[in-house]
Amino acid sequence: MIKLHGRDVSGNTYKAQLLMSLMNIEFEFLTVDVANGQHKSDDFLQLNPRGEFPVLEDDSMIIWDSQAILVYLARQYEAQSNNPWYPNTTTDMTLVTQWLCVANDDIFNSLGKARSMLKFNTEGDLDLFQQKGRAMLKWLERHLSQRNWLATNHPSIADIACYPYVALCEEGNISLQGYPAIHRWFKRIQSLDGYISMPGITSPEITSPE
Amino acid sequence: MIKLHGRDVSGNTYKAQLLMSLMNIEFEFLTVDVANGQHKSDDFLQLNPRGEFPVLEDDSMIIWDSQAILVYLARQYEAQSNNPWYPNTTTDMTLVTQWLCVANDDIFNSLGKARSMLKFNTEGDLDLFQQKGRAMLKWLERHLSQRNWLATNHPSIADIACYPYVALCEEGNISLQGYPAIHRWFKRIQSLDGYISMPGITSPEITSPE
Repeated sequence: MIKLHGRDVSGNTYKAQLLMSLMNIEFEFLTVDVANGQHKSDDFLQLNPRGEFPVLEDDSMIIWDSQAILVYLARQYEAQSNNPWYPNTTTDMTLVTQWLCVANDDIFNSLGKARSMLKFNTEGDLDLFQQKGRAMLKWLERHLSQRNWLATNHPSIADIACYPYVALCEEGNISLQGYPAIHRWFKRIQSLDGYISMPGITSPEITSPE
Repeated sequence: MIKLHGRDVSGNTYKAQLLMSLMNIEFEFLTVDVANGQHKSDDFLQLNPRGEFPVLEDDSMIIWDSQAILVYLARQYEAQSNNPWYPNTTTDMTLVTQWLCVANDDIFNSLGKARSMLKFNTEGDLDLFQQKGRAMLKWLERHLSQRNWLATNHPSIADIACYPYVALCEEGNISLQGYPAIHRWFKRIQSLDGYISMPGITSPEITSPE
């Protein structure tokens, strides 16, 4: 059975949990013992040279990047789902990758890092992360005001990758008021069959400012 | 014809140029007028909401993430190349995506940002970028000491995505001495048919410390 190493308060871990729930994939959850530095231990560094989580193990396949985990699950278990989570056409594949990179850098290194500082006392420049995060939300709002899903005309792993740290951003003291298109996108995701939430994301209803 | 908006001193722009040269794809190069803020102009923001470069235009397809540009070129023009730059199997696709994310965040936000500070006077914490960059090089050296290419058993867009800011890192005052496996990887890339260099990357020979 698939093993997912992670934490229930980690948005990156939640990406994998959410997609597996939406695709009806069973897995075993292994909580990383952060307090005792398990993610920096030699055993864990054998799994993941980055020393971070999540890590997904499926037989001999080990994947330590949360966006790559989504690509793996979408393709390896595509027969279990009637939605093309990582589509096959060049255009869709390109646009999904583009938003995986937005999740990986633009969103995590602004909204995600501000949350980490306030919630887990990590170091950094809070003002900078919040400022970049607010700029990111404006840009995302414009994008979503013209479409239902980020990359394709159906839900894809692009949406799953970008959703958690946007939905969690008020934990980084970045307000979600004034972004009606983002709230409509939240609701679309939260209405998917098999949707699950995580601590910090109010679900199934997020109060909309509309 | 494909239009590539970018700068000759940009490692992210070079990724697209290098892959197009290796795949024998013709394109028109349009230099972004950074001095006059063209990349922050309304016209450019229509192309790319991030306000950054490169941007690739191919008829109606517009791609503004440098990793996604590689996915697009590899797939759209795969008939022109006898190398599977973005392979089709689930395992290879997953591992390539994993390294695209390493290029996008781990490498650029350490080695790349240190270089930007020293070369283009951008702001940031130079010590932090250099420290993260040196940790990144050690981890990359370990990975490459056991294989020829980052993600697959042949060159892929993972190598093209990660190569530029590693090869340029001495411009960020991060030494490349003491990483023999990384130097062997450089030489493998530089020996590919159609390889081209960019300002700051000594080519075809980088002096190896071996």
